[in-house]
Amino acid sequence: MALPEIRLTGWATRDVRFPTSLDKTGSDAMNAAGDYSAAYCILETDSSVQGHGMTFTIGRGNDIVCRAIDHTWRHLVNDSQLRWIGPEKGVIHLALGAVVNAIWDLWAKVLGKPVWRVVADMSPEEFVRCIDFRYITDAITPEEAIDLLRASEEGKAQRLEDALNSRAVPAYTTSAGWLGYGEEKMKDLLRETLNSGYKHFKVKVGGSVEEDRRRLGIAREIIGFDQGNVLMVDANQVWSVPEAIEYMAQLADFKPWFIEEPTSPDDIAGHRAVRDALRPYGIGVATGEMCQNRVIFKQLIVSGAIDVCQIDACRLGGVNEVLAVLLMAKKFGVPHLSTIDYVAVSGKLSVLEFVDHLHEHFLHPALIKDGYYQTPMDPGYSVEMKTESMDRYEYPGAAGVSWWTTDEARIILDGEKL
Amino acid sequence: MALPEIRLTGWATRDVRFPTSLDKTGSDAMNAAGDYSAAYCILETDSSVQGHGMTFTIGRGNDIVCRAIDHTWRHLVNDSQLRWIGPEKGVIHLALGAVVNAIWDLWAKVLGKPVWRVVADMSPEEFVRCIDFRYITDAITPEEAIDLLRASEEGKAQRLEDALNSRAVPAYTTSAGWLGYGEEKMKDLLRETLNSGYKHFKVKVGGSVEEDRRRLGIAREIIGFDQGNVLMVDANQVWSVPEAIEYMAQLADFKPWFIEEPTSPDDIAGHRAVRDALRPYGIGVATGEMCQNRVIFKQLIVSGAIDVCQIDACRLGGVNEVLAVLLMAKKFGVPHLSTIDYVAVSGKLSVLEFVDHLHEHFLHPALIKDGYYQTPMDPGYSVEMKTESMDRYEYPGAAGVSWWTTDEARIILDGEKL
Repeated sequence: MALPEIRLTGWATRDVRFPTSLDKTGSDAMNAAGDYSAAYCILETDSSVQGHGMTFTIGRGNDIVCRAIDHTWRHLVNDSQLRWIGPEKGVIHLALGAVVNAIWDLWAKVLGKPVWRVVADMSPEEFVRCIDFRYITDAITPEEAIDLLRASEEGKAQRLEDALNSRAVPAYTTSAGWLGYGEEKMKDLLRETLNSGYKHFKVKVGGSVEEDRRRLGIAREIIGFDQGNVLMVDANQVWSVPEAIEYMAQLADFKPWFIEEPTSPDDIAGHRAVRDALRPYGIGVATGEMCQNRVIFKQLIVSGAIDVCQIDACRLGGVNEVLAVLLMAKKFGVPHLSTIDYVAVSGKLSVLEFVDHLHEHFLHPALIKDGYYQTPMDPGYSVEMKTESMDRYEYPGAAGVSWWTTDEARIILDGEKL
Repeated sequence: MALPEIRLTGWATRDVRFPTSLDKTGSDAMNAAGDYSAAYCILETDSSVQGHGMTFTIGRGNDIVCRAIDHTWRHLVNDSQLRWIGPEKGVIHLALGAVVNAIWDLWAKVLGKPVWRVVADMSPEEFVRCIDFRYITDAITPEEAIDLLRASEEGKAQRLEDALNSRAVPAYTTSAGWLGYGEEKMKDLLRETLNSGYKHFKVKVGGSVEEDRRRLGIAREIIGFDQGNVLMVDANQVWSVPEAIEYMAQLADFKPWFIEEPTSPDDIAGHRAVRDALRPYGIGVATGEMCQNRVIFKQLIVSGAIDVCQIDACRLGGVNEVLAVLLMAKKFGVPHLSTIDYVAVSGKLSVLEFVDHLHEHFLHPALIKDGYYQTPMDPGYSVEMKTESMDRYEYPGAAGVSWWTTDEARIILDGEKL
């Protein structure tokens, strides 16, 4: 089938911020009041198809990322001057992810498939051609990657079937576990998610041992110890390594599966030290949400620093770099999960976090049923935001329209900016 | 003595770029055409004293860092929303360094001392109070740091005397070694720097083995093998780990002291692998110029990944974080050098790179005599840029004034931006 030929004609950047700090949604030990935000990249073409890509921030600085998107569009790959203010990390890398994923969105729309399917339908050679192996050949070579993908083609037809039936990605939830929530709200939300089929529940920790013991007690009271329900805890990097070990030992009787982000996301040796120290307690270590690139993931994976690899697809430099990390995780046996991983790479089930706010702003929001992600079937990357949401929440926003001009927002912002 | 009380009244950000891409100054294997630039922060006060701080970039994206400086000024330490687009790395951390060092500049000017002397005159307890130990207590605790500083007070009076006589920091030079320079220019510059007292010479490598063997042959032809002159090579991160090892083995007969930045600055395990593999050849490993923060330095230092620790004081989050790295380097015996380190921390001599262009734009430029840095004696951080230089090179610049409007600049920029 001949593909239609389309031409990129321009791009637009949008700075969109939702006022989640108003009700403390998303609060944890490190992040008391975030405004969930998108630095959004729209690729315009000479056809009716547009490419949409976004990266995620929690508010202030989203404009800096938007500015970087404008630059990055001009110098997609490895521009030496822009590289200096990274390299491959932070603002510049967030921007790269938005731009690269807008291109994937566009490509998948032209093919009329969801992005996961575009990847799943690739031959091992095509898959590997998407990856920049610079800095990771000591962990995996292109040849090894092809062999690994070829081996995982066994059973792929069945796993594709599972994906089409939305049995590829079980979900977990933090909906009850945000640090700023009170006891009743926590209990209600735990019961609600338990009733809707979830088996995995995450609670934020790191404020104080006493307070966390109280909150984990509430969680275990609702989900039980012996009903197959799994508890995870997340410290959002507040501790130094010795603190993490000492603190977690005091939470061991609540039997968490893992501690997520016990310390700096840059500290590979530190995560390994925490993992080694907590193994006798039966507590694992997870991280990755703030891991800046494939080089840090490589070291975490190869050195045995983590039990679970948590990729933030908005923080890495787009789908391509995610694929590189999935391959390394597969080779070294560290679980991670996405539809792509299940169908095309590891062939194993794990759980993926579901955060259930702000979905109303997207054309094709993520959906959960019976504790599983509903596999997206719409062409593209499924990050296209509704135009009215973009307009309403754009920062700084037209006078009188944006939420930034509301009284509540002003109070919060003034309080924080003084 | 009572200090004058001054009040911060505001700040200004300046985006200043010098057209060094025009003559390829600064060119290396990763960076073919950089425009040496400063994202500059000026703190205004109600007195006649101003604080000046800057971070360094190589051109495009300098505006992004300036924008981050404006944010960072409002949320100096650990703002959770800005932290998301770091954390402690890249654009946000570069901006933090400029702001923090402007405060050091202001403080030192009020005290009437150069910054190095402010630190050198601190008690061990005052020194340690400047440091954020989060994420590094597994390498060094505040108590250990105080003991270490107390121990290094022996001989401090003599070292202070050395510093005042400008015998604290021997310099090395890359002036002849930029990748884009031709053979005659290289020879002339090598002879010139050799005659002016230098003993250490750095050459960029990583283009091709054949070309590098030719260039290192020229360097050794001029500086010799047996006259006590030291050759270093620098690959600016172009290689993956196996490539670095294979490539450097082919340069071993030129007897370089170390290979600088053989691979990604994020790859602690990779640097250690390169160091282990090159030890039989007598080649060491150096890195640090692009190390993003104290957490990466901690791992490089503690795991034995490097022979020499090269701190870029513009990339870390200001003097405070530099002090943290100096303490770890001292404890684990990895050499680094600055006047502060010599007088107050390690008490050992090493060499510091001197890049001899653009000094004409600063009020108190770094000076070299007999191969040593002349210890700065002027109050403050000595980064105050001449107003006329800022105006002339400000980006994007007033029409008809900035170099960005010259024909040469336009040709280069158009060529690169297409």
